[in-house]
Amino acid sequence: MKAKRILVINGANLNLTGTREKEIYGSTTLAEIESELVRIGKESGAEVTCFQSNIEGEIINILHSARNNFDGIIINAGAWSHYSYAIRDAIVACGVKTVEVHMSNVFAREEFRRTSVIAPVCVGSIVGLGAYGYYLAAKYLLEV
Amino acid sequence: MKAKRILVINGANLNLTGTREKEIYGSTTLAEIESELVRIGKESGAEVTCFQSNIEGEIINILHSARNNFDGIIINAGAWSHYSYAIRDAIVACGVKTVEVHMSNVFAREEFRRTSVIAPVCVGSIVGLGAYGYYLAAKYLLEV
Amino acid sequence: MKAKRILVINGANLNLTGTREKEIYGSTTLAEIESELVRIGKESGAEVTCFQSNIEGEIINILHSARNNFDGIIINAGAWSHYSYAIRDAIVACGVKTVEVHMSNVFAREEFRRTSVIAPVCVGSIVGLGAYGYYLAAKYLLEV
Amino acid sequence: MKAKRILVINGANLNLTGTREKEIYGSTTLAEIESELVRIGKESGAEVTCFQSNIEGEIINILHSARNNFDGIIINAGAWSHYSYAIRDAIVACGVKTVEVHMSNVFAREEFRRTSVIAPVCVGSIVGLGAYGYYLAAKYLLEV
Amino acid sequence: MKAKRILVINGANLNLTGTREKEIYGSTTLAEIESELVRIGKESGAEVTCFQSNIEGEIINILHSARNNFDGIIINAGAWSHYSYAIRDAIVACGVKTVEVHMSNVFAREEFRRTSVIAPVCVGSIVGLGAYGYYLAAKYLLEV
Amino acid sequence: MKAKRILVINGANLNLTGTREKEIYGSTTLAEIESELVRIGKESGAEVTCFQSNIEGEIINILHSARNNFDGIIINAGAWSHYSYAIRDAIVACGVKTVEVHMSNVFAREEFRRTSVIAPVCVGSIVGLGAYGYYLAAKYLLEV
Amino acid sequence: MKAKRILVINGANLNLTGTREKEIYGSTTLAEIESELVRIGKESGAEVTCFQSNIEGEIINILHSARNNFDGIIINAGAWSHYSYAIRDAIVACGVKTVEVHMSNVFAREEFRRTSVIAPVCVGSIVGLGAYGYYLAAKYLLEV
Amino acid sequence: MKAKRILVINGANLNLTGTREKEIYGSTTLAEIESELVRIGKESGAEVTCFQSNIEGEIINILHSARNNFDGIIINAGAWSHYSYAIRDAIVACGVKTVEVHMSNVFAREEFRRTSVIAPVCVGSIVGLGAYGYYLAAKYLLEV
Amino acid sequence: MKAKRILVINGANLNLTGTREKEIYGSTTLAEIESELVRIGKESGAEVTCFQSNIEGEIINILHSARNNFDGIIINAGAWSHYSYAIRDAIVACGVKTVEVHMSNVFAREEFRRTSVIAPVCVGSIVGLGAYGYYLAAKYLLEV
Amino acid sequence: MKAKRILVINGANLNLTGTREKEIYGSTTLAEIESELVRIGKESGAEVTCFQSNIEGEIINILHSARNNFDGIIINAGAWSHYSYAIRDAIVACGVKTVEVHMSNVFAREEFRRTSVIAPVCVGSIVGLGAYGYYLAAKYLLEV
Amino acid sequence: MKAKRILVINGANLNLTGTREKEIYGSTTLAEIESELVRIGKESGAEVTCFQSNIEGEIINILHSARNNFDGIIINAGAWSHYSYAIRDAIVACGVKTVEVHMSNVFAREEFRRTSVIAPVCVGSIVGLGAYGYYLAAKYLLEV
Amino acid sequence: MKAKRILVINGANLNLTGTREKEIYGSTTLAEIESELVRIGKESGAEVTCFQSNIEGEIINILHSARNNFDGIIINAGAWSHYSYAIRDAIVACGVKTVEVHMSNVFAREEFRRTSVIAPVCVGSIVGLGAYGYYLAAKYLLEV
Repeated sequence: MKAKRILVINGANLNLTGTREKEIYGSTTLAEIESELVRIGKESGAEVTCFQSNIEGEIINILHSARNNFDGIIINAGAWSHYSYAIRDAIVACGVKTVEVHMSNVFAREEFRRTSVIAPVCVGSIVGLGAYGYYLAAKYLLEV
Repeated sequence: MKAKRILVINGANLNLTGTREKEIYGSTTLAEIESELVRIGKESGAEVTCFQSNIEGEIINILHSARNNFDGIIINAGAWSHYSYAIRDAIVACGVKTVEVHMSNVFAREEFRRTSVIAPVCVGSIVGLGAYGYYLAAKYLLEV
Repeated sequence: MKAKRILVINGANLNLTGTREKEIYGSTTLAEIESELVRIGKESGAEVTCFQSNIEGEIINILHSARNNFDGIIINAGAWSHYSYAIRDAIVACGVKTVEVHMSNVFAREEFRRTSVIAPVCVGSIVGLGAYGYYLAAKYLLEV
Repeated sequence: MKAKRILVINGANLNLTGTREKEIYGSTTLAEIESELVRIGKESGAEVTCFQSNIEGEIINILHSARNNFDGIIINAGAWSHYSYAIRDAIVACGVKTVEVHMSNVFAREEFRRTSVIAPVCVGSIVGLGAYGYYLAAKYLLEV
Repeated sequence: MKAKRILVINGANLNLTGTREKEIYGSTTLAEIESELVRIGKESGAEVTCFQSNIEGEIINILHSARNNFDGIIINAGAWSHYSYAIRDAIVACGVKTVEVHMSNVFAREEFRRTSVIAPVCVGSIVGLGAYGYYLAAKYLLEV
Repeated sequence: MKAKRILVINGANLNLTGTREKEIYGSTTLAEIESELVRIGKESGAEVTCFQSNIEGEIINILHSARNNFDGIIINAGAWSHYSYAIRDAIVACGVKTVEVHMSNVFAREEFRRTSVIAPVCVGSIVGLGAYGYYLAAKYLLEV
Repeated sequence: MKAKRILVINGANLNLTGTREKEIYGSTTLAEIESELVRIGKESGAEVTCFQSNIEGEIINILHSARNNFDGIIINAGAWSHYSYAIRDAIVACGVKTVEVHMSNVFAREEFRRTSVIAPVCVGSIVGLGAYGYYLAAKYLLEV
Repeated sequence: MKAKRILVINGANLNLTGTREKEIYGSTTLAEIESELVRIGKESGAEVTCFQSNIEGEIINILHSARNNFDGIIINAGAWSHYSYAIRDAIVACGVKTVEVHMSNVFAREEFRRTSVIAPVCVGSIVGLGAYGYYLAAKYLLEV
Repeated sequence: MKAKRILVINGANLNLTGTREKEIYGSTTLAEIESELVRIGKESGAEVTCFQSNIEGEIINILHSARNNFDGIIINAGAWSHYSYAIRDAIVACGVKTVEVHMSNVFAREEFRRTSVIAPVCVGSIVGLGAYGYYLAAKYLLEV
Repeated sequence: MKAKRILVINGANLNLTGTREKEIYGSTTLAEIESELVRIGKESGAEVTCFQSNIEGEIINILHSARNNFDGIIINAGAWSHYSYAIRDAIVACGVKTVEVHMSNVFAREEFRRTSVIAPVCVGSIVGLGAYGYYLAAKYLLEV
Repeated sequence: MKAKRILVINGANLNLTGTREKEIYGSTTLAEIESELVRIGKESGAEVTCFQSNIEGEIINILHSARNNFDGIIINAGAWSHYSYAIRDAIVACGVKTVEVHMSNVFAREEFRRTSVIAPVCVGSIVGLGAYGYYLAAKYLLEV
Repeated sequence: MKAKRILVINGANLNLTGTREKEIYGSTTLAEIESELVRIGKESGAEVTCFQSNIEGEIINILHSARNNFDGIIINAGAWSHYSYAIRDAIVACGVKTVEVHMSNVFAREEFRRTSVIAPVCVGSIVGLGAYGYYLAAKYLLEV
């Protein structure tokens, strides 16, 4: 069931990717990551749509809209990963196969980052592989 | 002190009620629930106003506006029930008698759903009785 | 599956309802509550039977007897709600749809009252709405 | 407000006092303790009534009956001290000044014995002083 | 020290064994289990006495009576296993070698069933082997 | 490194300051506090800009905009202080020296208010000194 | 082994007894309590020596000196009861039978007061009976 | 489904059974236990194979080999019971009905021995009945 | 109620301020801080008295003496902040408005420093603002 | 620093991959996964070496040998992930960039699987993507 | 950096060493231990100074004085090891290499003794080797 | 009871001592440490035998063999110290006086290293003193 329409969702503070704390998050900007994802999608004849917001409710709304319109989601919920049960419920509600991505190795940082409340409702997670983690997630959705 | 103006607030993901996970939440839509609540209100000569949002801050804003304008609130804060101390504070701040409703039996589901941070500041809770729970909450506010 | 035979069970100390700690439990006596429940049942052509005991085992016995003889149970297990796994098992064993009621808002009181070990095996709970909570529970069983 | 009518309540397994595990509980029997308490009461012109049961609900019933009939209670709830919130609620409900007694030093034994759920609703506790603890509790109620 | 007089004690809800939740507890009734235990005893020239109650205090009373009258006890305390320190104390007090039995594998069920407060004062436990667990417990007491 | 451009951020429910729960938060309104802060800034030749929102994402956005535009931040994140790791990350990301303020003594209130998830990424905190706490925070940023 | 030489030790802040927080600690001063204890001792032909200090080390020193010089100790270690393992060790080291006293019911106050680290090494505790608790402790040491 | 081929697995340190800490584990050697198990098997026309190792991986390997070759397993994993999730997974993987045995009453010893990580994936456990526990486990597999 | 007599108390190790671990505590010495506090007091016509000790009991004694003699206290209890319930009780007992100060941001350091047992009985806390925190505390006491 | 020599390590029970619990781990065998990994390596001109053992110490030994001989490691430590600090230390000791892989979504299974003690010392983790997770890990090591 | 001036600090109750609880602490007195330490120092041409106090603050003061005057410290803080963060801070502040000593095996005694709050700031610990532990600590400081 | 035959056991990863993470473990190799230990033994006329393995079971086997063949053991179980209850049981089973050694200060590193499950069954521990810790342990066994 290879995905043909992929939605990429980035949450709180991820608009700053590549411009802040580069020692943790690398220097590739979110725009560059999104371009590469679109390119990877095209290679497989799939459409990749990207979305970012710092407002939890807009993440929920976009997830709702994913139903029927997308067959694969890549989500990096940023810090919300650690407490937003509302986003968790939205992922379940939309019913689309979702892969969680974290650029940094959240297991090697502060205690609170070690628990993702959305991980249990995703199909899987890719953690610590930087911007490349997004591309691997896309490959997974496109090919498996 | 029977309520004459009731505000019904539904939080994150509840706009999907009746259309997703029906085995948990039933098949009555939110619109149908809201219609029934308005009808129940009318029977008692009371006005019922309904509001739903997936944005936590809009829930807070509507709670602030409830002050002086409503004398009873029914709230199903969805997943926010489990962590939004901001909504909790807004309920206290508005000073209106509030009943918490959950359609599913949150005590029989995942561990995190067993704690409601807003329950302690509501007058009471109705849990697990489906859409009917809203109607009972309305009856309580209208008659007691 | 509207209930036609409802069993109302009140546990430890609830015989004192209406005569002690009125600021918490109100001033309606248990007898008055039971009368009202019988009256509500009659309105729907249903029979309501009431039982109270301060002995845990008698609660278990009455639950066992409910099997086949009742199609709805309203239970306020009082303090046993917080530790009597024996009553919990009896509710499961009897196989009758059960609604838990607490007159006071147990979520706003001592820490130990925040956990009900019977809630997960009931269909739902009504908490904090005083004597009126019993009547709503009856309405639910009679009408849904 | 010196007590004139004192109720002495002993809970689960305390009927065996003086006949089992003497290295922990001493060799004075419950009957002997009760006799001495009656004698101490008489010295002060007070009436001491004694009660023991291994059935939690009978302890609750006797506590209910204490209301208006006694002005002081001495209770050793035995193992129930560690989990019977039902007895705790009954002590509050009866509204009589209550002193908790444990013959052994519960703080020096198994972990579970270190917490008494009834201690917070008693006026105080006497722990570890053997049968003599009952007599001191009586003195307190008779003289203070 | 092979037992010649064995007391079999079943606690809360176990009177329903074989008639409820058969997928968990099997379909052998308590009466059948008790008959088989009596038969097994007879084979070894031992007397087996059976007792069941849903009232915690009656379990305590029967344990007290076991002293000097029995030289082996098999107990399935049902849900009390998880909180009744009163029964625990009674087992210690009676001073008879006691084997704990649970028909279902309590370690594979709800969290609360994983802890038995009476296990530490029994000589051992047999868990998860259905009605057969009682028979093994009897064999142990009869032969070791 | 005395601040010349200070951003004052108030979070959820703080728009009601001075109008609700005055026994906790005092009777000075947020507008009055903001005016005073602007005045204090002017005295030191500094510009003070004030912002309030009940939407978490707008707090994040304003923090992002603070980068390069402000050299000092005063933040009272209200209830978000206790769970919004997203705001925490935004404070780190903006790279501006930030002082946390709470008007009430959060250490003397409910348990959940005792932990601030943003405190570890602020330079310091001023707690419990009412509206005056904001002014002291401003003084600190202006003078140190 | 009735005590003939009793040492009464009061710890941190207890010099203020009877002059501060009278609603908790009563209005009898420490001097008055000590006088009464000396009087009670005399009645039994025993000598009572009293000591108070706000310095933990002085409590330890006086406990060391108790060895061989006293045959009973009454100690109210005040707040140290909740954390001073050093005083605990000193009680063990001196080898004298010790009774712990708390004037207020520490089990009904803040969480931290519910645990006494010295209780396990005392023979017993008297809690919540006000100044009278000291007198009962003396009676116990003098008569048992 | 009576077992005809039973595998008996003993883990770390159990080779020393009968030669060390006899007050805990008894004086029957492992060789004697194994002989008796073979004999019991023969009586029922079943083959009993015994294995012991102090190397966790060898336990895993033997469990893998059990698949299709055995229809019943008795395992005493020794201290690994308390932490070896690898052995737990191997039990699940081999798909053979497994009974856990502990010779000593692990619930009456150190805290860490109270949790068995393999118990939830076994059909049941026999604990505290010494060498006899193995024989009962065999009887169960042979007869039920 | 502006303070006219302020007592400044510094606890364990704070005599070394400005001479050790300067990267954490800065290089201003305690003497310099105290001089500045006296100067600030004078500006407002108030008297500032300073005290430091490494002996917990001397802190308690000075707090006792503050009663009636001071109308404002600034306390940095150093490491005692994290465990000295004795100092906490002394602050309550003296009845003087007290502000807690910590020079370093204790919320960003070791876990144990995140809890202050005295914070709940102070009017408020100033944390992480270095020596300047003392001056702000003084301003608060002098002006509010 | 693209890897040219990759070591693939599979731990306890993973030799059974593709032959057991296929609903969790899929039906691709370990041999097939290893072949595919070798093939993927060849495509990039890199050498892939595979190793599996059920003996923890052999995993440690192979990790030691990786030093200087490999420039990338893919490890699925199976159940050891949850408790083998020894393997964790070996990963650190070998100093080779390591990616952790889990085929199933460990965050959606039993509680104990949610914590990986080796994750903090790996560069990152790929979880829940089945056999494909290994291939993505290889891609990462080969290309980044 | 071999030490030439060593300070030996013994805390609460250690003045009684050799005279109390000899089964735990042995029968060598503190004076004898100190003599031996002086002698060992002399052998290496080093000066050993010994100090003991039951007053926490005096331990802090002597630690402060150690700065520049000693190049090695041996400390047995007794029960303070388990809670005195003030002594911990003093060890850090003095900046002298410190070895912690406990005569008894604190890991095999009460739970509270298993945690030393000063261990993390010492260079190392020697535990359970009796008086000999001091001598080994001295050897370490003198020779390494 | 001075040891004449000492067994030195090093566990997982310790074969790399002196070649990895030298900032933590120093640069003396295990071979050098073992040579020095043999030399120290010879000085006292004792035989020192050294053993290292990365396989837990081999550590258990060597411990079993120590019985009767050695009268002192020095063990550094590496990371197994934190979870191998199997090694703990083997130490108890062998019945030889055992000293635990850790080269680094495990109390100042990751949380999981703060607990040693073997410490309670050793006579004592030497922690943080590098290779020298082994020599001190040998001295202790040789001389005490």
